[in-house]
Amino acid sequence: MDKKEENREEEEQVVNPWEVSSSAGKIDYDKLIDKFGCQRLDHSLVHRVQRLTGRPPHVFLRRGVFFAHRDFNEILDAYEGGDKFYLYTGRGPSSEALHLGHLIPFMFTKYLQDAFKVPLVIQLTDDEKCMWKNLSVEESQRLARENAKDIIACGFDITKTFIFSDFDYVGGAFYKNMVRVSKCVTYNKVVGIFGFTGEDHIGKVSFPPVQAVPSFPSSFPHLFKGEDNPRCLIPCAIDQDPYFRMTRDVAPRIGYHKPALIESLFFPALQGENGKMSASDPNSAIYVTDSGKVIKNKINKYAFSGGQESMELHRKLGANLEVDIPVKYLSFFLEDDAELEHIKKEYGAGHMLTGEVKQRLTKVLTELVERHQTARAAVTDEMVDAFMAVRPLPNMFN
Amino acid sequence: MDKKEENREEEEQVVNPWEVSSSAGKIDYDKLIDKFGCQRLDHSLVHRVQRLTGRPPHVFLRRGVFFAHRDFNEILDAYEGGDKFYLYTGRGPSSEALHLGHLIPFMFTKYLQDAFKVPLVIQLTDDEKCMWKNLSVEESQRLARENAKDIIACGFDITKTFIFSDFDYVGGAFYKNMVRVSKCVTYNKVVGIFGFTGEDHIGKVSFPPVQAVPSFPSSFPHLFKGEDNPRCLIPCAIDQDPYFRMTRDVAPRIGYHKPALIESLFFPALQGENGKMSASDPNSAIYVTDSGKVIKNKINKYAFSGGQESMELHRKLGANLEVDIPVKYLSFFLEDDAELEHIKKEYGAGHMLTGEVKQRLTKVLTELVERHQTARAAVTDEMVDAFMAVRPLPNMFN
Repeated sequence: MDKKEENREEEEQVVNPWEVSSSAGKIDYDKLIDKFGCQRLDHSLVHRVQRLTGRPPHVFLRRGVFFAHRDFNEILDAYEGGDKFYLYTGRGPSSEALHLGHLIPFMFTKYLQDAFKVPLVIQLTDDEKCMWKNLSVEESQRLARENAKDIIACGFDITKTFIFSDFDYVGGAFYKNMVRVSKCVTYNKVVGIFGFTGEDHIGKVSFPPVQAVPSFPSSFPHLFKGEDNPRCLIPCAIDQDPYFRMTRDVAPRIGYHKPALIESLFFPALQGENGKMSASDPNSAIYVTDSGKVIKNKINKYAFSGGQESMELHRKLGANLEVDIPVKYLSFFLEDDAELEHIKKEYGAGHMLTGEVKQRLTKVLTELVERHQTARAAVTDEMVDAFMAVRPLPNMFN
Repeated sequence: MDKKEENREEEEQVVNPWEVSSSAGKIDYDKLIDKFGCQRLDHSLVHRVQRLTGRPPHVFLRRGVFFAHRDFNEILDAYEGGDKFYLYTGRGPSSEALHLGHLIPFMFTKYLQDAFKVPLVIQLTDDEKCMWKNLSVEESQRLARENAKDIIACGFDITKTFIFSDFDYVGGAFYKNMVRVSKCVTYNKVVGIFGFTGEDHIGKVSFPPVQAVPSFPSSFPHLFKGEDNPRCLIPCAIDQDPYFRMTRDVAPRIGYHKPALIESLFFPALQGENGKMSASDPNSAIYVTDSGKVIKNKINKYAFSGGQESMELHRKLGANLEVDIPVKYLSFFLEDDAELEHIKKEYGAGHMLTGEVKQRLTKVLTELVERHQTARAAVTDEMVDAFMAVRPLPNMFN
C-alpha cells in the first residue's frame, strides 16, 4: 500500500496540492488542522488585526474563510513592534480563465496589502504546470501572462507588488536559494510530504524548492537588498500547506525566519461541498469570464440546494444550510453581514425559497464578475510588463 | 541489497561520477565499455581525425587515453559534410588546485578546438559541488573562479570559448531546458543510472538535468540563436558517461541531436592504477601548484614502480610495465613517441633502472607544471570576466 492509499484509508480525506477529496463527501477541516499541525485562526486574532490595521477585518477573515494559520501571531507581533514583513502568494497557471475559487487568495491578499501597507511577491509557477500538466514551456508562459492580467485586475498596488513567472525569474539569488533548500530535504522527506512515487518524473521532485524560496527575502535582491531579513506571510488555500511545512522545516537551517501562513478553506464546487472547483468541468465553477446569463444558468441549474423537495415540505422544515451551495457562496461574497444573517434565518426557517436565494446570489456574483471583467479589460500588456519588471519598489514599506 | 552493492558484487568495479573503484585493483575498461554501451575508439577513427583536420592526432588520441566514444563518427560525418558542431566540457570545482588528471580533458579539448576550429562551452558545476561536498554557495563560487583560471591557462581561444558557472548562468533558456529534461526522466530512472537512495537529498536528484542541458544549443541563446541546431561533442572522463546516457535518452524526445562523447581513461594515482587520483590525499597526485622539488619528491617516494626488488633481479627480469606508474605517466605526457618506445623497451628489458625513468618523468612533469604555472599567473581577473561574459562569439565557427 503506498502512502497515498494509506492516508486515504485512515483518514478518508486527501488534501495535497494536486488532490482534494474526502470519502465523507465533505472536508473535515478540524481533522486537517490536526493532521497538518497548523492552528485555528480564532476571534482574538481577527480582533487584533482590526485593532492593528484600524480597519474592519475582511469578510473572508471575519467569516472564517481564512480559518487556519501558522505563526500569524508572530507576524502581528513583529508588525506591532515596527518590524517589516512582506506577503507572498502565487498561482499555477494551468488554465486560461480563473474561477471564483482562484480569486479568493488574491482578493484577500489585496486586502492584506492595503491594510498593512506591505510589499507583495506573486509567483506564477509556469514551470510547475509545464511539468504537471504536460504543457509546453511556451503555452505555460502564455497562460502565466494571461493569469497575471486577472491577478492585476484584483487591484494590487504596482508600487508594492512584484509578479514573476518562474521561467523568467529562476536564476541568480533565487536559484542559489533553491540549491540551499534542496540540500536540506531528502527524497524520503518529499515522498512523505507529497506522496511522489518512483514513476513520477524528477521535475516533480525538483519543484518544491522552487515554491519554497520566495519565502526568503534574499531570493529577491532587487527588493530586499539591505533590508534586515523581513518576515514573510503567505496567504493561500490550505492545500498548499505541504510546501510550506517543508519550507518552515528548512528555513532556520539556512538562516531565515519560518514563513507564516494564513490559510483558507476550499471554495466548494457548484455541485456541492466535497472538494475544490475543477477546471476540467466548466459546470462545476463560475468563471471570471462567464456572462451574467451563464452565471444565472449555472446557479439555477447546478448549484446544489439545501431546500426541500416540495414547497410544502420546505415551508415546514426549512432549508438545510449546511449543504446549501447558494448560501455558502453568499457567505463568501455577500459583504453585508446583516443581509446574510437575514437570508440564513429566513431560508433556514422555510420562509425564503431556494429560487429567491439563487436570484440574490446571481446578482452578487454577476456584479463581482462584471466588475472583474471591467478591471481586467483595462489591464494592458504594458501594465503586465510593469508589474513583472525586475525592479526595486522604492516605497514598498510606506 | 541496494543498487550500488549489487553492481559491486556482480562486476567488482564501480564507476560513476562519484566513485571509481575496482575489487580487482584495476579498472577493466573493456568491461566498462560493454556495461555502458559505448564504443571503442579504434585506429580508423584516429586516422580519420588526422585526415579531416590535417594535423597529427593528439598524443591522448594516438595512445588511447581517449579510448571510447558515442557517435564520434557522426560528428566527423557532420564535420566532413560542412555541418557545425560545438564542444562541451566541464569541471566540478571541489578543490582549489587541479591535479594532472583534471588537466587531461582540458588539454584534449584545447586540441579539439584548435583542430576543428569550433566553439566550446565549459560548465563549472559549482551548484553540484555545493550540494555534494556541502560547501557554501559562496565557497563553491570562489572555487569555480579559481578553477576557471587554471582552465583558461590551458590556452583556450577566447573568441570561441564561453565559460560559465551554474550559479551565475542557470535561468532563462537554460532553466527551460532543465525543466524539459526533468519531465522526461523518472525517479526510478535516475536511481538506476546514479544509484541515489531515499536518504539522498533532492538536490542530487535535481542535478542531472543541469549537467545535461549544455548538450543542447538552445541553452545558450547568446551563442547559437539562429544557428541550425548544431551537434554537440563532449570530451570527458568515462565516469561522466552516466549523465550523458541519460541526456542521449532524452535528446530526441525534446527535439535535439544526441550529444556525441569522446571519453578518457582515468589518470592513475601515484600509488598505482586502481582508481582516479584523489584530492583528499595530496600524495596520491601531482598538483599543478606543486614545485619542481615537490614533484621530484612525490615521484621518487610514491610513484609505484614495476622495477624489480634488486638491481640483479631487475637486470635479469626487467620492469613490469603493466603496473609501472612512471611509464604510465610518461605515456600520457611524454610527447616523443620514439623516446617513449625506447624507454619502454630498455626499462622492460632491465637495461634501464626505475631511478632513470623517474628522473625523466620528473623533468617532463616539472616542465609541464611550470609551463602551466606561468600561463596561470598571466590569467587576470579581467580575463576570467571576459571568458565568463554572456556574449556572442561572432566568429566562433571560423
